[in-house]
Amino acid sequence: MQGAVPVGEGGAGGAVPEQAEVLLGAARARVDPELRRAIGSLPAAMRRVARHHFGWSDGQDAVPVPRRPAGPPPGAPPGRAGKAVRPALVLAATEALGGRPETAVRAAAAVELTHNFTLLHDDVMDRDTTRRHRPTAWTVFGDADAILAGDALQALAQRLLADDPHPAGPAAVAQLAHCVVELCEGQQADTALERRAPAEVTLDECLAMAEAKTGALLGCACALGARYAGAGPGAVAAMDAFGREAGLAFQLIDDIIGIWGDPARTGKAAGADLLARKKSLPVVAALTSGTAAGAELAVLYARPPGEGELPALVSAVERAGGRDWAQAQAADRMSRAVQDLSRAVPEPGAAEGLLALAEFVTRRSA
Amino acid sequence: MQGAVPVGEGGAGGAVPEQAEVLLGAARARVDPELRRAIGSLPAAMRRVARHHFGWSDGQDAVPVPRRPAGPPPGAPPGRAGKAVRPALVLAATEALGGRPETAVRAAAAVELTHNFTLLHDDVMDRDTTRRHRPTAWTVFGDADAILAGDALQALAQRLLADDPHPAGPAAVAQLAHCVVELCEGQQADTALERRAPAEVTLDECLAMAEAKTGALLGCACALGARYAGAGPGAVAAMDAFGREAGLAFQLIDDIIGIWGDPARTGKAAGADLLARKKSLPVVAALTSGTAAGAELAVLYARPPGEGELPALVSAVERAGGRDWAQAQAADRMSRAVQDLSRAVPEPGAAEGLLALAEFVTRRSA
Repeated sequence: MQGAVPVGEGGAGGAVPEQAEVLLGAARARVDPELRRAIGSLPAAMRRVARHHFGWSDGQDAVPVPRRPAGPPPGAPPGRAGKAVRPALVLAATEALGGRPETAVRAAAAVELTHNFTLLHDDVMDRDTTRRHRPTAWTVFGDADAILAGDALQALAQRLLADDPHPAGPAAVAQLAHCVVELCEGQQADTALERRAPAEVTLDECLAMAEAKTGALLGCACALGARYAGAGPGAVAAMDAFGREAGLAFQLIDDIIGIWGDPARTGKAAGADLLARKKSLPVVAALTSGTAAGAELAVLYARPPGEGELPALVSAVERAGGRDWAQAQAADRMSRAVQDLSRAVPEPGAAEGLLALAEFVTRRSA
Repeated sequence: MQGAVPVGEGGAGGAVPEQAEVLLGAARARVDPELRRAIGSLPAAMRRVARHHFGWSDGQDAVPVPRRPAGPPPGAPPGRAGKAVRPALVLAATEALGGRPETAVRAAAAVELTHNFTLLHDDVMDRDTTRRHRPTAWTVFGDADAILAGDALQALAQRLLADDPHPAGPAAVAQLAHCVVELCEGQQADTALERRAPAEVTLDECLAMAEAKTGALLGCACALGARYAGAGPGAVAAMDAFGREAGLAFQLIDDIIGIWGDPARTGKAAGADLLARKKSLPVVAALTSGTAAGAELAVLYARPPGEGELPALVSAVERAGGRDWAQAQAADRMSRAVQDLSRAVPEPGAAEGLLALAEFVTRRSA
């Protein structure tokens, strides 16, 4: 079932990831000052919340922080969000289309602020208590301050683009605002799907939810990068499609890792999604597979979580074809992404950076 | 202590309120189609939440609505937000500066969407259960959907301005985004002030909070109207100042009504803020008055709410000078607003509409 692109094969070495890591590091270095300037412009109370969320609580803003952990566990990987995937996509898209990445730094920061606004709010809604190895903002500062910090980050993102003298600024504001509505739609669909009985959820619904919740912002990042290179509507749309498909591949691999990943390498507790009865993509593929193992999984999912059940859950998803489907689907999405990219950037050499980033985020160890 | 402007004197008749009512009605008629179009563009699940919030639940979007009331009580006044004060200010400011109000309809709708985004989120944070005589969105649809609908309205507001071909659009996006950060700051200060002991709260802090939470958006409404008339920075800033001062007067009168208003006319339970130990402006003025009645109020506020205590609370605030201070402060703010307005619009005739609106919102029966 494995496609041409070695998705999820754990290739941590090799030339391509190295190029991606260079791009990610460069994007972080370029965007961090802009992000810190934007956050620094916030009123003190919201600045504290945002600095905690970004992991910048360096003692400058002393606040009473209950349950603040001593730091990431030894050897834990840095949080993925810390990798600046979205800003790197903006800058790489600008460069791929002949623009100067340094002119798109505000757009890259705006996309990162938007991503973090959604994380702050999602954590409140989902009652998630840990993010990037730290307690989530609402657990430290309360719901109200976490919601308000998210609201402020959304406004800061728009302000960065609106204040940008770059000619692409106004169109970028409109596209980012469109994207935010789609992100909200994705999160709404996610919470609604989680409330429904597993038998009532279709795979198409889950894929549409993942595209809105994850694909849309990766697509928007690439599209804004294209706009900042002065690209025409065709290239902007193709870049958006590239980012969306890569984003879906990314989500599929993320879901695979959530079940079969090595906690020591991924920083995630293995099987936590299964124990929480989450309707991740491999699970819904298994539940809707029409196989005996799928029916077995449905029975297990209908029971309250019990001790020692994890191996049976994992095995049922696997035997029902959930893992194979997700791997194949991720490979298929990456292959579509590559096609979209070749439409946006006909010259293969110019597309290398974007391709490296897309492969990097879908190539993590499963 | 009453200033030159008869603030809070209950002048419901007279020529000025009539002009304001005409402006409010015209603004509602102009902005409603734009608002409905924007809300109509939302994905179905969020559209339902927004339609409920705006009071448009006309059966087109049938949803299970627990505890939906039969309608406003007979003779109850319409919700103030239904009066379109902010959109009317945008359009009146455009007209006052020689622009055509019909060109500023999107800006007026964007301001109204922003106002409603903050209401949706504030209700979640403050656990308020009723707004505009209906159950708040979070009580009907849950926290997650109410938060997401608010996020989407913020994005819609920005999108309306960003998609607007009017030359003022880009600057308006930036100013509205600045304003949203200030609104968040105001709500953050409000929730923080409510958590602190009454003795630790100063009147200056409360006034700053009210300016950020209420004055900022009224100021922004007027400033955007000025921008849409093609006004220069001086007039834009003076319009902002006018709206801010009028907004503070409005908040002061609102707080007075919350204590001394007639529930049959205001639609608010008299004294509910006192029973909830809210630190409204007249209360903090009383608490910080250095009078014996102020000390009495502090003792009462330190007790848990008890039956039959309301007359003693109201009397203590009044004897400590809280009502007189708030009346005088409101009159002072209105007088400053009038001065700001005369800087923005030197020709008195052209400023009439804005003045009528400002007096209308601060002239409700106390």
